[in-house]
Amino acid sequence: MEELDFTVETLGECKIESPIPLKNNMDEAHASFVNDNERVLYDIIYHEGSKNNRDDYVEGNLMEKAGARRHIYFQPNHVHAGIITCGGLCPGLNDVIRAIVRSLWYEYGVRRITGIRYGYQGLDPNNNLPFKELNPTNVDDIHTKGGTILGSSRGGPSIETRVDTIERMNLNMLFVIGGDGTQHGALYIADEIKRRGLKISVVGVPKTIDNDISFIQKSFGVETAVAEAVNAVYSAHTEAKGAIDGIGLVKVMGRESGFIAAHTALASNDANFVLVPEVKFELDGPNGLLEALDKRLERSFHAVILVAEGAGQDLLEASNAKDESGNKKLADIGVFLAQKIVEHRKKKGLPANLKYIDPSYMIRAAAATPNDSLYCARLGTNAVHAAMAGKTKVLISMWNYHLVHVPIGTAISKRKVVDPKGPIWKDVLSTTRMPLSMTNN
Amino acid sequence: MEELDFTVETLGECKIESPIPLKNNMDEAHASFVNDNERVLYDIIYHEGSKNNRDDYVEGNLMEKAGARRHIYFQPNHVHAGIITCGGLCPGLNDVIRAIVRSLWYEYGVRRITGIRYGYQGLDPNNNLPFKELNPTNVDDIHTKGGTILGSSRGGPSIETRVDTIERMNLNMLFVIGGDGTQHGALYIADEIKRRGLKISVVGVPKTIDNDISFIQKSFGVETAVAEAVNAVYSAHTEAKGAIDGIGLVKVMGRESGFIAAHTALASNDANFVLVPEVKFELDGPNGLLEALDKRLERSFHAVILVAEGAGQDLLEASNAKDESGNKKLADIGVFLAQKIVEHRKKKGLPANLKYIDPSYMIRAAAATPNDSLYCARLGTNAVHAAMAGKTKVLISMWNYHLVHVPIGTAISKRKVVDPKGPIWKDVLSTTRMPLSMTNN
Amino acid sequence: MEELDFTVETLGECKIESPIPLKNNMDEAHASFVNDNERVLYDIIYHEGSKNNRDDYVEGNLMEKAGARRHIYFQPNHVHAGIITCGGLCPGLNDVIRAIVRSLWYEYGVRRITGIRYGYQGLDPNNNLPFKELNPTNVDDIHTKGGTILGSSRGGPSIETRVDTIERMNLNMLFVIGGDGTQHGALYIADEIKRRGLKISVVGVPKTIDNDISFIQKSFGVETAVAEAVNAVYSAHTEAKGAIDGIGLVKVMGRESGFIAAHTALASNDANFVLVPEVKFELDGPNGLLEALDKRLERSFHAVILVAEGAGQDLLEASNAKDESGNKKLADIGVFLAQKIVEHRKKKGLPANLKYIDPSYMIRAAAATPNDSLYCARLGTNAVHAAMAGKTKVLISMWNYHLVHVPIGTAISKRKVVDPKGPIWKDVLSTTRMPLSMTNN
Amino acid sequence: MEELDFTVETLGECKIESPIPLKNNMDEAHASFVNDNERVLYDIIYHEGSKNNRDDYVEGNLMEKAGARRHIYFQPNHVHAGIITCGGLCPGLNDVIRAIVRSLWYEYGVRRITGIRYGYQGLDPNNNLPFKELNPTNVDDIHTKGGTILGSSRGGPSIETRVDTIERMNLNMLFVIGGDGTQHGALYIADEIKRRGLKISVVGVPKTIDNDISFIQKSFGVETAVAEAVNAVYSAHTEAKGAIDGIGLVKVMGRESGFIAAHTALASNDANFVLVPEVKFELDGPNGLLEALDKRLERSFHAVILVAEGAGQDLLEASNAKDESGNKKLADIGVFLAQKIVEHRKKKGLPANLKYIDPSYMIRAAAATPNDSLYCARLGTNAVHAAMAGKTKVLISMWNYHLVHVPIGTAISKRKVVDPKGPIWKDVLSTTRMPLSMTNN
Repeated sequence: MEELDFTVETLGECKIESPIPLKNNMDEAHASFVNDNERVLYDIIYHEGSKNNRDDYVEGNLMEKAGARRHIYFQPNHVHAGIITCGGLCPGLNDVIRAIVRSLWYEYGVRRITGIRYGYQGLDPNNNLPFKELNPTNVDDIHTKGGTILGSSRGGPSIETRVDTIERMNLNMLFVIGGDGTQHGALYIADEIKRRGLKISVVGVPKTIDNDISFIQKSFGVETAVAEAVNAVYSAHTEAKGAIDGIGLVKVMGRESGFIAAHTALASNDANFVLVPEVKFELDGPNGLLEALDKRLERSFHAVILVAEGAGQDLLEASNAKDESGNKKLADIGVFLAQKIVEHRKKKGLPANLKYIDPSYMIRAAAATPNDSLYCARLGTNAVHAAMAGKTKVLISMWNYHLVHVPIGTAISKRKVVDPKGPIWKDVLSTTRMPLSMTNN
Repeated sequence: MEELDFTVETLGECKIESPIPLKNNMDEAHASFVNDNERVLYDIIYHEGSKNNRDDYVEGNLMEKAGARRHIYFQPNHVHAGIITCGGLCPGLNDVIRAIVRSLWYEYGVRRITGIRYGYQGLDPNNNLPFKELNPTNVDDIHTKGGTILGSSRGGPSIETRVDTIERMNLNMLFVIGGDGTQHGALYIADEIKRRGLKISVVGVPKTIDNDISFIQKSFGVETAVAEAVNAVYSAHTEAKGAIDGIGLVKVMGRESGFIAAHTALASNDANFVLVPEVKFELDGPNGLLEALDKRLERSFHAVILVAEGAGQDLLEASNAKDESGNKKLADIGVFLAQKIVEHRKKKGLPANLKYIDPSYMIRAAAATPNDSLYCARLGTNAVHAAMAGKTKVLISMWNYHLVHVPIGTAISKRKVVDPKGPIWKDVLSTTRMPLSMTNN
Repeated sequence: MEELDFTVETLGECKIESPIPLKNNMDEAHASFVNDNERVLYDIIYHEGSKNNRDDYVEGNLMEKAGARRHIYFQPNHVHAGIITCGGLCPGLNDVIRAIVRSLWYEYGVRRITGIRYGYQGLDPNNNLPFKELNPTNVDDIHTKGGTILGSSRGGPSIETRVDTIERMNLNMLFVIGGDGTQHGALYIADEIKRRGLKISVVGVPKTIDNDISFIQKSFGVETAVAEAVNAVYSAHTEAKGAIDGIGLVKVMGRESGFIAAHTALASNDANFVLVPEVKFELDGPNGLLEALDKRLERSFHAVILVAEGAGQDLLEASNAKDESGNKKLADIGVFLAQKIVEHRKKKGLPANLKYIDPSYMIRAAAATPNDSLYCARLGTNAVHAAMAGKTKVLISMWNYHLVHVPIGTAISKRKVVDPKGPIWKDVLSTTRMPLSMTNN
Repeated sequence: MEELDFTVETLGECKIESPIPLKNNMDEAHASFVNDNERVLYDIIYHEGSKNNRDDYVEGNLMEKAGARRHIYFQPNHVHAGIITCGGLCPGLNDVIRAIVRSLWYEYGVRRITGIRYGYQGLDPNNNLPFKELNPTNVDDIHTKGGTILGSSRGGPSIETRVDTIERMNLNMLFVIGGDGTQHGALYIADEIKRRGLKISVVGVPKTIDNDISFIQKSFGVETAVAEAVNAVYSAHTEAKGAIDGIGLVKVMGRESGFIAAHTALASNDANFVLVPEVKFELDGPNGLLEALDKRLERSFHAVILVAEGAGQDLLEASNAKDESGNKKLADIGVFLAQKIVEHRKKKGLPANLKYIDPSYMIRAAAATPNDSLYCARLGTNAVHAAMAGKTKVLISMWNYHLVHVPIGTAISKRKVVDPKGPIWKDVLSTTRMPLSMTNN
């Protein structure tokens, strides 16, 4: 079994009694505290009959359980908390902000909560972006709206400048809601904080609409994204059936992981071809997409193609540009495919009725579904518990149906992708009945 | 007052008793017949005190009221009816098909109803497209889905070929659901039918998601389209507010008329600039869009632009190509604007966070809202009444809240547009608070 | 033709130039003023060939056109406007409030706008209900929520007390959003205002989810209500089909008019029996509902019944109680029918799987659909135009697709009902294929 | 640690090669087979530092992993499969049916699939209910509709009669979609099958909108139910805020478990009191609900109460009647509370504006959300894998995020309830800020 480091860093000993029972008029039993020695097993598949595997279920296989601690590190009425949202929009951002604010305020009695505007850019004094004071009243119904009330951005000033600002603000805890690049930044910030000998918790809530951060079973917002993407595929299907040899082409998010495309295909049942970054495909040749598409149209008179934005990048002239968060800029596979298909069909003298739908911004800007909303609330609340207990450099994650702490460094060490030989992709193959491979050798 | 010709052509005298009371187990009172001499006034604005205007409310101002007639032209059990849907998808197509089938079947007892596949292309024997028999069972819940179960297309074979097929099918009535170009075609077909001395009703149900056919107060599907477009604008607004100087740009349908853009702006309240074909605008110069946008962003930090596809065509290098229905092919104003705005902002060293949303296919493919659905049902039912009474070359329309017959020739003689000095545009100006004019002289 | 009084009362001569062009940076052409002598014809059906009917299209047949006037009665910066919402909730209330506030503020520059809390109860000093100051900021996105931000109630203090409070508030105009009973109250208030020699406009926006106020083609909120009711019928249909001889029973609003039930039946197509106040029915006997239901179940194994709350009142022991607005309290026809049907089926030894759904509060509390929202905005804006021009005792209404002024006294003189021999009921009979009559003699 | 029996019964040795790679044009790697010795750990919380607990993570703690097996028990082209849905409607029933049919047909090549109508009643020859042949075409888009295309019922004929019918049908496998009582029935059927020496797999898909079957983390349909219930609470909140001291009361499902109420409260944030079967409450006395409600209204002027149908049963005169599935019939707590609250408020001379919403049938009849739909598809597919491998008396369940087999006998041995001292209820207490206890001693 792979050796993993799930050890969570803390700022120091927890000596302060949690105010939760008092603040919530609860006895201790109802406060439902989690003991610091409670762990959640990471790998829970057991091969009966294989030797020595009992010990494997302990060493390097234990994640720290999230939840409120009986004793905490910070004195609540000394706390000044900061919240920041970075990167692209994702359903549920406002839900997480709201849960953090409400948990700090009601469960712990914290009264100084500051929203930092437009991601890390808000920590750059040159940008002159005012902070936003947060309280239960001004976050009361923000969960009914998409987007983030704090604004977001990519990039930002130097790590030193960020920590300078954090220090000047007298923050004791920083909640960072963002993706892979953002959490990288959070880690550097936490390192710099440590170097300066400051006592500031940095707790991340992982946001990735692509669902590609490791050790997180399902990212918040993904479920809502799939629900929205299903609508787009439904439209593409309707358009495809409405025309002679109609082709609907839908592009969804997924730079390096095809989760949204795969889940959307399974939830909608209308996609006939699913193209993801994890599975190489070719356009031409007897096994290529174009030939497979022609065959499908000859048989069924319409077809729907669902493509993740990161699929088929080898087919495009690779662009070396990177965006401000350091993500590789991708050429647009949707537009590229649309052109290639139309050219191919016309060259063969066949109808070329292709309708291209790019619903990305409508997906990202959606308000969270109730189930997603509930999940975001739990992530936010548990981020607060972690920070109050002095945990730092840590993400809140759902794993094996339990909320756990994952060290940021471990989580961002590699990306999570769709396994082309795993059950999800097998279900996609079964459902779409698309060819197992669309390459020629 | 303008002299208009609202005279409806008929195939001959109506001598057959309507079977509606019998088929529906109704007495005549409940059958709610419309008398052939009932007219609906076209222009109903009266300027009190002006001379001689009483007579104006009669001459050339009377539209024929739609509805079931006590005596009809066709013997129901001799009838073979054809239904055809042409042009781009529009919410409600299936509702209209369903209503025509149910009315023919249940109200009149007609048992031969044929769906022609993929628009006028389905009348071309070379295309080898099978017909689809229609009955209440196979149209039972099609109204819950978008698109058209018959398929659609643009263009088609020669008028002679079309009528040859119609003749070979032994149709007595043809229901044509389509837009301006399609109804032109219907008129030529009806002329050719007449030339051959055939007795075939041609009745149109006007379909224009752009809402630009004259003498039709509101086309079916438009309301649904606006509801969907409101969602797109909401997403654009969320994206715009989520970024520094964020700009949301949404393109909606509207080749020559900006109704959808205008109504969407009024229903959503989130658009700050509305660009329509009827109102010229410039990009550059002190009064141009770019300068106005910069000012808006300086003041409010985000902006939403809603553009109809036909707006600003003079700004594009005009393409002379026409599509198969003869519509001028428009270069894409959305993509063009996105480029120009980003270039302009970058050149000025300002943030250029533009998110472009083109929801057109998701709008077109939506299922009709209940209110639209209800309207489609009434249009379809009344198209059947018209055809059974031997009316031909006629559209079913809503005017002054009443269903009426409009001669196809009259309806397609000119387009309906948004009056830049009328109340709708005034409301758009008031709501958006955009500049009255974005031209420089 | 019936002689109708459409004469609108005014407070005096309009001598003040409208500030609309100035405030909106418009020229006069764009301001789109309506001339006070513009009328909309009320009855626009013309029977060609009948004698002397040309004059009929003028006398007693002219409604005053709504819209902004070039000259107004009130000096905008002297105006203090009050807004009040009364009676049961209805989709669109917040939209109307929002439009009134925005039109007063932006189009006319009025800065004192007061929301009166909880209907006429808010005018009773004993209730000690604080007023709510309104401005474009605090009404900005209220249209995305159902209900009314002002609260509502039935009943209230004496007319004298109401006018005392209005006088004390120094209101110049009162916008009354409410139904029949509420507009009666508004009329009495306006009479008392006149008696006291005050110059206060009383302008009503008619609210009736039952759609039963006369001279109003379609009330705001009705379309949304039908859309919601369609969902309930869909659920009832699903439940009915899911059980042996399953029966779905849905009760919708409609005290004296069955519009919602009728429109819902037409939009959903799933109802098999529609029961409305306008059409008497019996339970027992060979033609009664119970026998008809048994037959339907024998034939189709499931049935859906849609009943308006005011239907079949003669079948209930009439309750003489009235609620605080003076409406007759109705015993619950839904619960009554459910009991009678189950008893009847059990007595005959037949399956009695009835599911009863009462979605009323979910319908009332819904946010307006975009189309309804747009309509509310137009009603609210035109109410402001009317008040600014010194019109009083007047409702804003849509008639023959045009916005008009209807004197409150005329509008409330009788109720609008579904005509059992008109086209809507005929369509309900055709669609449901229910018996023409379910009485025994 | 509690000793649990997770041993799954099988009909015999699996000797037949799975046709999945062949039928799906896959190699074995892509077929993603699960080995029969793969287990999923049941209890995965580990208390670090406690003695001897490593072994606990094996004995009695291993659930069988669900999934396709390389070798199967049944020869696919000999298989005749039956599908049955029992009990109340629940979102997702059609999705499960569809997935079973598609998996049988496409993955295994089974061609005889029979739907049994109206639950176990369909196995009673006296009921004369025709079977329904199922194939991918007639289940193609049933997942877009609520309810069950097979119909459902409670109760049914004797176990002997059921097995007689199953034998006469020559079924090899029976898929039973239903709740606790239904799975009890399935167990008796499987026992009788064994007694007769027949080789018929009985595989259950647990359906409980109350989410109260043990060893199932989240039942299908629950997420959709919560989403619908959130709407009802939203309406109640809107109504409550719209009236003086307005009270919204919503009843949701939950006979013995308050999961839906608790999750709805957490997802909606609008409920102020949540009443569940697991937490006793009193109406009267200083700590009772009525007093707490009065205080809330005095403070906030409106209140929303969310009650599970099984809450407060001790407050009702217990009815001893049971329904046909053997569930205790509950008196209606919603109606009871509504009466008591109104009486109490009137007696104290306080406003009594209570609006009662019972959305149960609208919740049950909803179509599954995309995420629920996806989950149902996975349950159905894995039920097929289990049956093809000869597993019997087994349920398909999600546990610790993995799909597993749970013996029916184990699953129905006790009910799952909301733990009043667990994290969900603590979150409800924190979110609603309701009193910890509403009893007086």
